[in-house]
Amino acid sequence: MDDLPADLTHDKFLCGKLQLWQPRHGYRAATDPVLLAAACPAQAGQSVLDLGCGVGAAALCLATRVPDLRLAGLELQADYADLARRNAVENGIALQVEVGDLADMPKALRMDFDHVIANPPYYPRGGTPSPNAGRATALQIDTPLGDWVRAASRRLAPGGWLTLICGADGLPEVMAAMGDKLGSASVLPLTPREGKPALRILLRARKTGRAAFRLLAPLVIHHGKSHDGDRESYTPRASEILRGGASLSDEFR
Amino acid sequence: MDDLPADLTHDKFLCGKLQLWQPRHGYRAATDPVLLAAACPAQAGQSVLDLGCGVGAAALCLATRVPDLRLAGLELQADYADLARRNAVENGIALQVEVGDLADMPKALRMDFDHVIANPPYYPRGGTPSPNAGRATALQIDTPLGDWVRAASRRLAPGGWLTLICGADGLPEVMAAMGDKLGSASVLPLTPREGKPALRILLRARKTGRAAFRLLAPLVIHHGKSHDGDRESYTPRASEILRGGASLSDEFR
Repeated sequence: MDDLPADLTHDKFLCGKLQLWQPRHGYRAATDPVLLAAACPAQAGQSVLDLGCGVGAAALCLATRVPDLRLAGLELQADYADLARRNAVENGIALQVEVGDLADMPKALRMDFDHVIANPPYYPRGGTPSPNAGRATALQIDTPLGDWVRAASRRLAPGGWLTLICGADGLPEVMAAMGDKLGSASVLPLTPREGKPALRILLRARKTGRAAFRLLAPLVIHHGKSHDGDRESYTPRASEILRGGASLSDEFR
Repeated sequence: MDDLPADLTHDKFLCGKLQLWQPRHGYRAATDPVLLAAACPAQAGQSVLDLGCGVGAAALCLATRVPDLRLAGLELQADYADLARRNAVENGIALQVEVGDLADMPKALRMDFDHVIANPPYYPRGGTPSPNAGRATALQIDTPLGDWVRAASRRLAPGGWLTLICGADGLPEVMAAMGDKLGSASVLPLTPREGKPALRILLRARKTGRAAFRLLAPLVIHHGKSHDGDRESYTPRASEILRGGASLSDEFR
């Protein structure tokens, strides 16, 4: 392992179907991008833009489930974008990565996509910024959640789908930003344990959609009442998604 | 029962703790006002306005749990308002009922309340108006849900609580209407069966509140996979609320 830079790790996702380089101490992909990919209803041949793609985890997870996608990613930080390109190549997946800010979309991405997926930086209220700059940039809410939703909406073709994962506390801002551009929204609450409030939500909304909003039954991630040391504690359904790479299409049906 | 008008029924609520006159064929109170009352965090001595009080079911249910409330109701339809007054008197509860429209609040109610509760008329998408005028007025969305939220907000004292029950499909409109006047919101999804989407939601929000939005674990109303004829199918917790008159304070904690 002499060629492994001290500041990177090489981590298995989806039981090793995917292996991704990521910074050891910066923002690190965990379950969010896997859940995001599982919730995206993309089909073979469609185009997908990953807004804030980081090291490419969500886009590349999606590609392991759905063949022949045209995948693009926008990433603010050049070092993360470099890792996303490297991860795509090493996993044999085509992914076009552009460095830029969603407030000033690079020209190469100014087109209509069938899908936009996004895992906006999440900075829990009451915390303090990380001393690590990469982590701080990735987690800090420099860009309001509503701006992510509006930028995604601008990149969607009519009838195209936004799939978004964010903190449950962001739901009011997300809904306000949907305005009359996005509709047919469904929210899947993600709860760590049965009977607990949702900490995260997955949202699907459709450009020019007009169907009624739906609040779905929660997806429970862990079984048991509390964390049980190092034992695998995923519920069977969470394990199908997070380890098996299954789609969340049944939940959104 | 010779004195029972043909067009009214006299129905038990909360296992008979309350008995309410209501039109046989018009809008009829069922579980919604009972759930609404259970979700309101009013305490003895506080003031409560029931916006669109109908025959008074929510306000009177609340009075059976919390003593010494100063209760007021606004009702658009004079015949429902008359029944609300009669129901209050016959159940020995003080309730001031004013006839009027929330877009033009009667002077007698232009004051600050500690609580506003509301069960806005609900008219499921795709349905057709009822031939019965009372039912049509009560169920039809003549007044947008957002107007209910804004009217409620105007009547709340700083720090006062709005408690609202509405269709889950109304959540985006409710949230958009909260704006920066109402915060510290919590949503309790109400689902007919385990694992099903929420059909209704209970929302609590606080005037000038600044705490993070919370999406709570759903309250499941019925057990079993489907409706089992006439058998009582409430879950134990739903039965505590709907029959026993318990508070939903644990769910909102």
